[in-house]
Amino acid sequence: MNEAENTLSIVALGGVNEVGKNMYAVQYADDIVVIDCGSKFPDESLLGIDLIIPDITYLQENKEKIRALVVTHGHEDHIGAIPYILKQLKMPIYATRLTLGLIEVKLKEHGLLRETQLITIDSDSSLELGMTRLTFFKTNHSIPDCLGIAFHTPEGTVVHTGDFKFDLTPVNDQYPDIHKMANLGKNGVLALLSESTNAERPGFTPSERFVGEHIEEAFNKAHGKVFISTFASNVHRVQQVVDAAIKTNRKLALLGRSMVNVVSVALELGYLTIPDGMLIDANEVNQMAPERVAILCTGSQGEPMAALSRLSSSKYRQVEIVPGDTVILSSSPIPGNERNVARIIDNLFLLGAKVIYGSGSVTGMHVSGHASQEELKLMLTLMKPKYFIPVHGEYRMLHQHRLLAESVGVEQENIFIVNNGDVVDIHNAVARQTRKIPSGNIFVDGLGIGDVGNIVLRDRKQLSEEGMLIIVIHLSKTEGKIVSGPDTISRGFVHARHSEELLHDVNQLVTTTVHNLEGTKVNQWKVIKKSVKESVGKFLYTETKRRPMIVPIIIEV
Amino acid sequence: MNEAENTLSIVALGGVNEVGKNMYAVQYADDIVVIDCGSKFPDESLLGIDLIIPDITYLQENKEKIRALVVTHGHEDHIGAIPYILKQLKMPIYATRLTLGLIEVKLKEHGLLRETQLITIDSDSSLELGMTRLTFFKTNHSIPDCLGIAFHTPEGTVVHTGDFKFDLTPVNDQYPDIHKMANLGKNGVLALLSESTNAERPGFTPSERFVGEHIEEAFNKAHGKVFISTFASNVHRVQQVVDAAIKTNRKLALLGRSMVNVVSVALELGYLTIPDGMLIDANEVNQMAPERVAILCTGSQGEPMAALSRLSSSKYRQVEIVPGDTVILSSSPIPGNERNVARIIDNLFLLGAKVIYGSGSVTGMHVSGHASQEELKLMLTLMKPKYFIPVHGEYRMLHQHRLLAESVGVEQENIFIVNNGDVVDIHNAVARQTRKIPSGNIFVDGLGIGDVGNIVLRDRKQLSEEGMLIIVIHLSKTEGKIVSGPDTISRGFVHARHSEELLHDVNQLVTTTVHNLEGTKVNQWKVIKKSVKESVGKFLYTETKRRPMIVPIIIEV
Repeated sequence: MNEAENTLSIVALGGVNEVGKNMYAVQYADDIVVIDCGSKFPDESLLGIDLIIPDITYLQENKEKIRALVVTHGHEDHIGAIPYILKQLKMPIYATRLTLGLIEVKLKEHGLLRETQLITIDSDSSLELGMTRLTFFKTNHSIPDCLGIAFHTPEGTVVHTGDFKFDLTPVNDQYPDIHKMANLGKNGVLALLSESTNAERPGFTPSERFVGEHIEEAFNKAHGKVFISTFASNVHRVQQVVDAAIKTNRKLALLGRSMVNVVSVALELGYLTIPDGMLIDANEVNQMAPERVAILCTGSQGEPMAALSRLSSSKYRQVEIVPGDTVILSSSPIPGNERNVARIIDNLFLLGAKVIYGSGSVTGMHVSGHASQEELKLMLTLMKPKYFIPVHGEYRMLHQHRLLAESVGVEQENIFIVNNGDVVDIHNAVARQTRKIPSGNIFVDGLGIGDVGNIVLRDRKQLSEEGMLIIVIHLSKTEGKIVSGPDTISRGFVHARHSEELLHDVNQLVTTTVHNLEGTKVNQWKVIKKSVKESVGKFLYTETKRRPMIVPIIIEV
Repeated sequence: MNEAENTLSIVALGGVNEVGKNMYAVQYADDIVVIDCGSKFPDESLLGIDLIIPDITYLQENKEKIRALVVTHGHEDHIGAIPYILKQLKMPIYATRLTLGLIEVKLKEHGLLRETQLITIDSDSSLELGMTRLTFFKTNHSIPDCLGIAFHTPEGTVVHTGDFKFDLTPVNDQYPDIHKMANLGKNGVLALLSESTNAERPGFTPSERFVGEHIEEAFNKAHGKVFISTFASNVHRVQQVVDAAIKTNRKLALLGRSMVNVVSVALELGYLTIPDGMLIDANEVNQMAPERVAILCTGSQGEPMAALSRLSSSKYRQVEIVPGDTVILSSSPIPGNERNVARIIDNLFLLGAKVIYGSGSVTGMHVSGHASQEELKLMLTLMKPKYFIPVHGEYRMLHQHRLLAESVGVEQENIFIVNNGDVVDIHNAVARQTRKIPSGNIFVDGLGIGDVGNIVLRDRKQLSEEGMLIIVIHLSKTEGKIVSGPDTISRGFVHARHSEELLHDVNQLVTTTVHNLEGTKVNQWKVIKKSVKESVGKFLYTETKRRPMIVPIIIEV
């Protein structure tokens, strides 16, 4: 495979045609560099699943070629799968200080910290990994310390943007490396992978500073306690809450495990500045004048176990929301979370709070961390890529991003909308998308990784919607005759009005069904089970229009 | 109870602190008039439930006093429970022609049409129902033929708005009876019940005509086939689609059962005007030039079985979406439906269609049927009620509506935010909210009404998230010793990697557990079951972090 040796391959392992679970790989000759290792939350159809992570069969099959996992930033959709993947495949991890700090928290929880090689990089780093050299550029996003990555290979340069926006007035002076980006474009970018989260959104995403002004104003106006809820990882938002509290002479309490965790990592690493004596314990809130306190909490997405949800239902032991308090939702509900967030707002109003909620652009309390259409065009214009692969997004977002790329001059035939598992091979400056590698969703359920499959999910769905009926039949070993019973046990299925009558009829039917099959051989219990399932299923559907799972159990006596 | 005889009572049976399931009653002395009889769709936590309807215990207990069910309009959240409620309680139904037409379709399906008394009214009707006289006024909404209701009682006048907006340039000249409303207010309204759906939305909801202009423009621009999806019951929207098709010289095909049903009722009753020869069959679409065809279909909320969803996944037999076709979503996703709608848009783009989607105010393809804040203030100003009860909405909407009422001069202490089951009693012009009547959610599941309760739902939830393990134990009748087995059967629960090993360990554990209880009396099998459940449950949680439902079955041998 002489040719393969100098082919540049871009592999999508996760994150296209979906939001979350980001994982890509860039391979040149025998060197594979993995980008990100994210998880995704299941939707309600995936009953009982805790987390979804990428299928890494391809990486396992090529593990001797893997030089590094490079992580662009510390959000769950980029780092959430790391502990699960590391259990299957060891890789050294390269990331910035804050990103590594957040990864360390995870590795500690999974007892993997000691055995994992962690290498701190920054935007000035340059890594030689086999024949590929990596350089980096700073981007803005809703978490500090984000990187874009440039892969310099003999075939040409590939750029992966990570998540970004162009915040030209950023908090903490974390400016995007726009000159570096321009320089990459000037020197020639063979292929660009750019994120598509906000590709449907016209215009330019407002600066994070826009939010700071509104938080301060709300803190000023508030008479009682102020509660503000946001993503813990949005360290710049947290800093602005701290600043508003300082200016309005309020102490700050932190509620929620992830808020406490992230703030402590960010403080320790110097990404947050909080004056001594500013932070108070949740226990101290009640001892202070309400107008001297602000409370920063988790749960802005309506998560039922998070601080805001517990506060809204008066279940937070140390702190109470009372009439006159103000609650600010500094966030936008992620699609699917709307109902949970709405429930919380209802409850907050019931408690008599003033609630500031709704679209961030109206309340001024939230801005997105992702580039809108004009910024995506700016990135494309800076990079002037020959080939373009929109990543991070569902199909309509990738599609809109393609239209944006065309509008700034990328050739239509040079744009690849790929699926997870697709590979774009570039050889002698010609790109082709022909190969596929294994890919997919691995379900994490409890301690099990990948052991819940479609049959289990199908069973769970039926059980959840229709319940089940266990039918125990005692058959004589020799004659196949019913000796006693049958006995029926139902769970999640009843038909209250006539349930006794109904189950009596079921028993009758089972007896008749088995009787008709009398003489069936012992090794053909399967036939009896199938007949019982079918006849009882049909009967119950006619009577109740429900299809409980029917589990016949034959006991040989 | 002399006093009760001339007390005016307003009863909320459904529709407050929720969206949907609207049902209220106005009682004066011994005359009860019921308003609306709506259903609600369950959220994903109500596993396997088809529909939610109001608890009518109060009405059943007072059935000799019920004079009528008066229905304000033909939407599901106002008529959806009628067939289920009629099976428990007979009432004559009063409604306008279109509303009755839609109710008749339901009654036919449930075989109730013959036995039900249906009385057609219009906005000029006046009904004497016992000591209460009912008059009506026209309102605009996203379905024609809507009524507001005035209850003239010796104690004073109660007004229920139904659903409304103030569309001052309505389609089909269905103007709101603004002078009648003003007159009611002039003569004195004791209590107003007004809908709160859009109480969070500032401004004035745009006219339905705004949409018509944009549909026509899109039809003009489209080169291939045009698909447009909307609620079938939005007859004015349908009329505007018809009109746009006429103007752009396209024939119109209707896809989806409810679209065909509603259009046929609306045509028959004269609420729709469609020229002869305009409608074509789905089979004919492929025989025509694409630019001569428009297709009006159901499924704008992403319903998986509706026409648009099937079209988007190329599963609609007679009609296909091909590159160059245009698809218009003339709707806004109802909270909870966003993901399903997004999936469809992804698939439509994959088919190569041009898709017009997103916020109706941006695309011009949808306007709400509900009054925004300025219109709610207009209604309150017209009616000048002494007492105000905001209805139709979750708590935050009722709360915002209260603030609007205060802003136009309703006394704060005269505003009642009630719960389902609350009664507001007015006697000698003084209102009190003290009594409660039975109320709640009745679940419809298959053919069963109200037979699925919390235990069944809890079981379904556990089954759905964790699966189950059936453990069959054969015990000797006399000694309580294990004779054979135990046998374990799992559904929706596995731990693939070690499943055999794991189940082996479970069997061992069961054997030990039962052995330790040896000698337990036959009538105490319960003790054995409980011990097995506990020990196996603990073991599985430690091993797998899952809690499957454990069903021990003891067979006496």
